Amino acid sequence: MTDKTLDVLAIGNAIVDVIADADDAFLAGQSLDKGSMRLIDEGEAVRLYGLMNAGREVSGGSAGNTAAGLAALGCSAAFIGQVASDELGDIYKHDIEAEGVRFLVPARGDVGATARCLILVTPDAQRTMNTFLGAAQMLEAKDVDLAAVASAKILYLEGYLWDPAQPRAAMKAAIDAARAAGTRVAFTLSDSFCISRHRDDFLALIDAGRIDILFANEAEITELAGERAFEAAVAAVAARVPLLVVTRSAKGAVAIAGDERASVPAEPIARLVDTTGAGDLFAAGFLAGQAKGKSLETSLRLGAIAAAEVIQHYGARPEADLKALAAGLL
Amino acid sequence: MTDKTLDVLAIGNAIVDVIADADDAFLAGQSLDKGSMRLIDEGEAVRLYGLMNAGREVSGGSAGNTAAGLAALGCSAAFIGQVASDELGDIYKHDIEAEGVRFLVPARGDVGATARCLILVTPDAQRTMNTFLGAAQMLEAKDVDLAAVASAKILYLEGYLWDPAQPRAAMKAAIDAARAAGTRVAFTLSDSFCISRHRDDFLALIDAGRIDILFANEAEITELAGERAFEAAVAAVAARVPLLVVTRSAKGAVAIAGDERASVPAEPIARLVDTTGAGDLFAAGFLAGQAKGKSLETSLRLGAIAAAEVIQHYGARPEADLKALAAGLL
Repeated sequence: MTDKTLDVLAIGNAIVDVIADADDAFLAGQSLDKGSMRLIDEGEAVRLYGLMNAGREVSGGSAGNTAAGLAALGCSAAFIGQVASDELGDIYKHDIEAEGVRFLVPARGDVGATARCLILVTPDAQRTMNTFLGAAQMLEAKDVDLAAVASAKILYLEGYLWDPAQPRAAMKAAIDAARAAGTRVAFTLSDSFCISRHRDDFLALIDAGRIDILFANEAEITELAGERAFEAAVAAVAARVPLLVVTRSAKGAVAIAGDERASVPAEPIARLVDTTGAGDLFAAGFLAGQAKGKSLETSLRLGAIAAAEVIQHYGARPEADLKALAAGLL
Repeated sequence: MTDKTLDVLAIGNAIVDVIADADDAFLAGQSLDKGSMRLIDEGEAVRLYGLMNAGREVSGGSAGNTAAGLAALGCSAAFIGQVASDELGDIYKHDIEAEGVRFLVPARGDVGATARCLILVTPDAQRTMNTFLGAAQMLEAKDVDLAAVASAKILYLEGYLWDPAQPRAAMKAAIDAARAAGTRVAFTLSDSFCISRHRDDFLALIDAGRIDILFANEAEITELAGERAFEAAVAAVAARVPLLVVTRSAKGAVAIAGDERASVPAEPIARLVDTTGAGDLFAAGFLAGQAKGKSLETSLRLGAIAAAEVIQHYGARPEADLKALAAGLL
């Protein structure tokens, strides 16, 4: 086993979020499924942006948000994802590095524009995401620093990365390297529509024993299990993976590893603003606990604390001092 | 006098703000004057950005913020400023148009990069601004739509625009057109360092009777008057301009027109987050009142309401429903 000098290496779509308020009528008029993520092409991105309210731009991307959360919690984190040599690419690189994450892939000039996600936040704080992948889908297997994978305690992958072909190959190469090096592989199912696109592949990954820690929310676990009843779905998937973590929004979260089961309530919050990044930051807290050898329960509590911070402001990267919020737990 | 179909036409530097938290030690280490605005070149912009925390990008620029505030209050507003044909330029154009402002100048591909302002927000909510003017300083006199100027009740100009030579010429042309068409000319002194660079020019504009409404804060009015005592400075300047408006942060604001004097306290706020845009939105509220024929006191109250909204979140454009906040006053 390689020396583990890095807590977590994350691989994901490098995306700048464009966040604007919208009302339910706007979502209905655009036939958007509230709470979901859909992929759009550049033409649709331009069209939809033209209809959106004024926005704020903040670096995002699921696994990138998780890496930023890990660094904010004091863990060593690195990120692999592709940006273009453009202004949004500069912003993405600046932000993730400023957050203390090692960004391992240089920007490229031949990959179109940096990815952006048009996020509509409704008054109920739900986010509905429209992602133009652009440069992010040009990540190649050769961009994966295999030595970095081997040096990490945990490799973290987002299910979204399964959509574009090249990053999918990159992810497979990273999993191979992780398994050879004794690096635990953590995977988030990302989105129920993402599962409906790739269920067989995801189940094959799980059943081949290539995933050690699986993250899901309620919609995702029932979608993956093909089973509407929550507890039945959890039991079915938990039997197939070493460690299953399921987040349940305001109802808290549960983790199951063989016969061990732990759960936590959601952290209390002062005001709910924008749920973007809740799952990503939950994963950051949980993985921080795992990387530092903490119990399932402590890992869950760390996840709940990090998620609670990010849903109290716009944007999916932490703004408050997560280390202070997690004091005594890490 | 031309028919007045537009409430306010604003001319200013078209700037995207890059807003990040910083502590006092960082400002000291970079020899930055807290609360001020300084002009920087592209090299310094890259250097300073590299040292800043992760940020959020939001459209800004003083007069552009004022135009957005006017539109949010239900006034008809147009904006003249130069952006480049780049990603930040697209964002600037999208945001100001989404806010309901007519943006009168097309992006250009031959003017470098769109302007950005690196804004450091300290824990006391003060903002310290570092502006790379880029494309904004390429605004030319020929870009000023003179018919639009003539159609406006009020022409609003930011003192910052006096720094670069071409926009200065554009501003002079706009003032000429306004005076010929019976359009009132409103001018903000912008920043005390800006005044120290251009005091003689600003006083000459005032004494030539080319400014009808002058906006200043406490630091600016004393700097312009060359008089440390606040009341003496206000009296000296009020004697030279038809309508003087002075904002005093938490102490409220005062307006003086000849023998008439009105004042208002600051609006109460729940939490102070980022003072960026306070003066710009005060001007928006005050000008909305003036465009709609309201009294000095009502105009001041509208200014205080709009300023109070913008300092309770990051970014210098309104997020809450200003029309609702101003209900009954307009």
